[in-house]
Amino acid sequence: MTALLESYAAGRWFRAQAEGEPLLDAVTGEEVARLSSEGLDLRQMTEHAKRVGGPAIRELTFHQRAVLIKELAKHLSADKDSLYELSYRTGATKRDSMVDIDGGFGTLFSFASKGVRELPNDIVVLDGGLERLGREGTFLGQHIYTSRPGVAVQINAFNFPVWGMLEKLAPAFLAGLPSIVKPASQTAYLTEAVVRLIISSGILPEGSLQLLSGSPRGLLDVLDEQDSVAFTGSAHTAGILRNHPNVQHGGVRLQVEADSLNCSILGPDVRPDDPEFDLFVKGVVAEMTVKAGQKCTAIRRAIVPEPIAAEVTEAISARLAKITVGNPADESVRMGALASLGQRDEVRKAVESLRNSAEIVFGDPNSVRLVDADAERGAFLSPVLLRARADAAEPHDVEPFGPVSTVITYRGTSEAIELAARGKGSLVGSLVTHDPAVARQVVLGVAPWHGRILVLDRDDAKESTGHGSPLPMLVHGGPGRAGGGEELGGVRGVLHHMQRTAVQASPDMLTAITGRWTTGSKRTADDVHPFRKSLAELRIGDSIASGTRQVTLADIDHFAEFTGDTFYAHTDPEAAAANPLFGGIVAHGYLVVSLAAGLFVEPNPGPVLANFGVDGLRFLTPVKAGDTIAVTLTVKQITPRTNAEYGEVRWDAVVTNQDSEPVATYDVLTLVAKN
Amino acid sequence: MTALLESYAAGRWFRAQAEGEPLLDAVTGEEVARLSSEGLDLRQMTEHAKRVGGPAIRELTFHQRAVLIKELAKHLSADKDSLYELSYRTGATKRDSMVDIDGGFGTLFSFASKGVRELPNDIVVLDGGLERLGREGTFLGQHIYTSRPGVAVQINAFNFPVWGMLEKLAPAFLAGLPSIVKPASQTAYLTEAVVRLIISSGILPEGSLQLLSGSPRGLLDVLDEQDSVAFTGSAHTAGILRNHPNVQHGGVRLQVEADSLNCSILGPDVRPDDPEFDLFVKGVVAEMTVKAGQKCTAIRRAIVPEPIAAEVTEAISARLAKITVGNPADESVRMGALASLGQRDEVRKAVESLRNSAEIVFGDPNSVRLVDADAERGAFLSPVLLRARADAAEPHDVEPFGPVSTVITYRGTSEAIELAARGKGSLVGSLVTHDPAVARQVVLGVAPWHGRILVLDRDDAKESTGHGSPLPMLVHGGPGRAGGGEELGGVRGVLHHMQRTAVQASPDMLTAITGRWTTGSKRTADDVHPFRKSLAELRIGDSIASGTRQVTLADIDHFAEFTGDTFYAHTDPEAAAANPLFGGIVAHGYLVVSLAAGLFVEPNPGPVLANFGVDGLRFLTPVKAGDTIAVTLTVKQITPRTNAEYGEVRWDAVVTNQDSEPVATYDVLTLVAKN
Repeated sequence: MTALLESYAAGRWFRAQAEGEPLLDAVTGEEVARLSSEGLDLRQMTEHAKRVGGPAIRELTFHQRAVLIKELAKHLSADKDSLYELSYRTGATKRDSMVDIDGGFGTLFSFASKGVRELPNDIVVLDGGLERLGREGTFLGQHIYTSRPGVAVQINAFNFPVWGMLEKLAPAFLAGLPSIVKPASQTAYLTEAVVRLIISSGILPEGSLQLLSGSPRGLLDVLDEQDSVAFTGSAHTAGILRNHPNVQHGGVRLQVEADSLNCSILGPDVRPDDPEFDLFVKGVVAEMTVKAGQKCTAIRRAIVPEPIAAEVTEAISARLAKITVGNPADESVRMGALASLGQRDEVRKAVESLRNSAEIVFGDPNSVRLVDADAERGAFLSPVLLRARADAAEPHDVEPFGPVSTVITYRGTSEAIELAARGKGSLVGSLVTHDPAVARQVVLGVAPWHGRILVLDRDDAKESTGHGSPLPMLVHGGPGRAGGGEELGGVRGVLHHMQRTAVQASPDMLTAITGRWTTGSKRTADDVHPFRKSLAELRIGDSIASGTRQVTLADIDHFAEFTGDTFYAHTDPEAAAANPLFGGIVAHGYLVVSLAAGLFVEPNPGPVLANFGVDGLRFLTPVKAGDTIAVTLTVKQITPRTNAEYGEVRWDAVVTNQDSEPVATYDVLTLVAKN
Repeated sequence: MTALLESYAAGRWFRAQAEGEPLLDAVTGEEVARLSSEGLDLRQMTEHAKRVGGPAIRELTFHQRAVLIKELAKHLSADKDSLYELSYRTGATKRDSMVDIDGGFGTLFSFASKGVRELPNDIVVLDGGLERLGREGTFLGQHIYTSRPGVAVQINAFNFPVWGMLEKLAPAFLAGLPSIVKPASQTAYLTEAVVRLIISSGILPEGSLQLLSGSPRGLLDVLDEQDSVAFTGSAHTAGILRNHPNVQHGGVRLQVEADSLNCSILGPDVRPDDPEFDLFVKGVVAEMTVKAGQKCTAIRRAIVPEPIAAEVTEAISARLAKITVGNPADESVRMGALASLGQRDEVRKAVESLRNSAEIVFGDPNSVRLVDADAERGAFLSPVLLRARADAAEPHDVEPFGPVSTVITYRGTSEAIELAARGKGSLVGSLVTHDPAVARQVVLGVAPWHGRILVLDRDDAKESTGHGSPLPMLVHGGPGRAGGGEELGGVRGVLHHMQRTAVQASPDMLTAITGRWTTGSKRTADDVHPFRKSLAELRIGDSIASGTRQVTLADIDHFAEFTGDTFYAHTDPEAAAANPLFGGIVAHGYLVVSLAAGLFVEPNPGPVLANFGVDGLRFLTPVKAGDTIAVTLTVKQITPRTNAEYGEVRWDAVVTNQDSEPVATYDVLTLVAKN
């Protein structure tokens, strides 16, 4: 008997007292491992996550969590060769394994980078701007996102045992949630191997990650309103989860990524000798054969213009004929096995259903020539291309989870859009066209049914990552049949794990709650110019109220001449008087902010290293010749950089005139030394 | 027999061929109207919405939709007196009616304003920035929101027959969706009256709004993956909706706002003679008595420090004793009737349950002194205050939907947070404190259980809108028991009705799809300077590549002297050389953008009226003495204003040096005349 996979639960590796279910090599039919979770205490796992893991993660800021994710990605990358070996046994070729394994590590790197760049070095995320809820400005609203003190349960599909885990783990961890990972049975041994690497590295705080190797039965019973379940798999299982009382009435959040009959549309503008024709054909073949078509993002429906359908079908078939199928460890093999013999049966059944309204034009679901493999023992299947008859129903309803695609024809662009919509909601669609008008019409037409749309043409083909690849910075998920969930999308995927709350309070209270200076809140001014304070010394609300400067007509004239900005509103009294907004000569906006900098700057070397930008500059009241301006600068946000000797300080700047009217408001961004 | 309420379906008023269910006056028990939807063709209604209403709305831009909402708000406001009269019959006092009726119209005004200010004058919303997906910049990602071609079904609660409809209608309409409104039976006559005003005004395109007066049975059967149901009501009904096959498997989106045991926490810092003590007491009493406590946002749990619980209970009771109950049309009356005798029975039952672990300290659920009303015929109830015993369970689980609240005591701040969490998810919580540290600890502690949190103290009390008032610009909804939905929140509420899609394409294709110029996309330059083109003449991508200017050391010196910005990096070669980022004298950032304006500006009077701001300015490469800069300005976005002779043009600005390196990038915002 081979090894029984273990679970990692409540801080230790747990081995079931049971024989376990055998997991078979997809290529040879040999047993790879056994699986059982008998005796595993699921309540203890969720409690460990909530009492140990969650609090430990939430002690870290988003940046600190991101640094750990990056460290983890580096650590795992060093060990990937052993994972490739195991991955062959799932039926995957080396190229397939790279999608899963390197793709998974790439997702970690991407979230690490997004976490540092797009989230604050803090534990609260502000959502949108301040809402002024009263005239006087004493009552304000600010939306915030906070971490839920729950657990993120992740139930993954068999097709991406590594990426599938990491793409869910990274955003949950960044959001402050501990994860319990439940891999699909067929390929659980590969997930277990990665979890062993993660746990033994000690990089993530204990309790951040637990592994449930085996059945998740009873897991939803111990979840509550702060917990979530992210499920990837069949619509059938999704239905069972949606019916659970804790989902129906207990407030458990369920995020589903299920079936998807993705389409690729060949634009009506494309002729057989256009580069887009080849791009379309290559795309369809790639999506049919990578991972033997076992991708929820694969192209199931190739929607092509009726007049060139024959050419398209021929070209796809010719290319499919070159795909060698067999032992994925053999370098000449382009397509390996399905995950199991059972899966192969499912796909054959789906092809039979499709044949109700489509003809097979390439391949035989019951026969395939193999390289270095045995068709009886391994779950091999030939690629199968079908062509749908007019008004076919099955191609829009039946998902063959293997190397199978159906060509469907259309006559006009609006019919193409209607056909795409018949998928009832997909993870991804693609459109191959070089006509911008077609792109706009089709993309806006089909977008409501899609989580992602790829527009492919000669211009982006070289850099395109292809129809089937979800990217960490783009949302992954789709409406309707695809489950209605949304994962990834950079920070969007993190925020899905957090709670958005509208906070209504006085400015001072909002400053205290958010850790960010709020307009209207107290300012602190002492004898020391804030530019003389290091990052460690600066405090939210530290400010300087500058002296004043009169802006003379001579200043305006001079600035116009010096910069070359001789716009008539600054130089021609008569023309300026006719301007409906100014009614006379006004100072340049750039002059106002330049003089403001002269008023607030502390000239000597000190902790402030540079002004690297300005955000949200608005000119509110024209500055006329003779007006006197002053500026108040206040520390709004302090963001130490994790990997540098300095950090970012965002300053609130308000320039006022002699009547105390604000003439310009903006944020000044500076780099300030830590010490 | 009184009038049978009609439905507005598929463009005409529909009268059921049935007697209908009688709707009784909450105060007198007289019949107000009858209700039946027998014979109504629900499939025809959804088809009318999708074929007539939706397309008509989606022909309009967000700004055009917002203008109609504003027009509608003005129109309805003119007719509100007749609505007040009808509102008395629901048991509401004049003040209660204002919350419902004026609150509803205010919500329309707010969404109209948000639509114009925060959404583009277009049909697509961009979400977040561009994602560069390849090194060369030929393959980019952009998230967009598009309108769903579906219908928004709105199932409302009885307590806010006007606001409840309008707060759902406004964001759906802005999002491009037609609505089918199903009011709660008890108060459907008031909703019907408002719908009559809306329909007869002809302001909204036909099909935008239909009314289902009667039973919604069968309505979910005819919905699909582009449709949504927004439900406000009991958790029991929510459970039935969640179980519908079209929600479980058909992709119908369900948004729920159900039970909520909201709490108000009195901070541990507050003493009986602090202003916050009175604010807390007034807040609890207001929430118990406005709408006779029939608000899903009312305070059901008053969580107070154990040491002053007696004082709090006494103060609340004393204030409750002054509340006159009776005929809401009588000006001396402070609290009217519950919506129906059935509701009163429900509340009495809930009070009985609460008495398992709490004592009544004020009021008698079976007896109340009334002004100008009859306790047998009208659904009147005394306010009832309870005080919970230690470890009471019921106050955290039983929602008395009437003028009832329970005082619960705590000993330390963390216990207060735990007690709040026992509500298992609420629409709103409030905290009355004047201590910023308490505010941060409690708000961040309870935020994961709340959609909205009010922090009340002496500073914001005057302007505060109170615990129980959802505001159109803040999210309304809560996790867990509260249903997990989210409404309102300004543009957030609009986007909930739209589909987010990641689009991957070349820059040119993204420009075509989004209608906004994308970095890397083609620029158009002709003989005419774009500043000489009116809004009508300007096109996305119109651009000007400026001449060059050398930035000399003399320029930098002069600028420092002229503006007073003598920061050492611009003036002191030795100190500048020691700066880790510059390594020598650099030009001021403000000098660079000032000179760039001099390079791109067209000085003569023309369509460009003013530069009103700058966004996202980043200094990427230092400009050193002797460097030569140039700037390219490109039209990125054109936003005609609906109510002015000009519009906004956003220009992409890139300043480069002699090596074509970008030294600064930003958006310039200008106002440009339409013609």
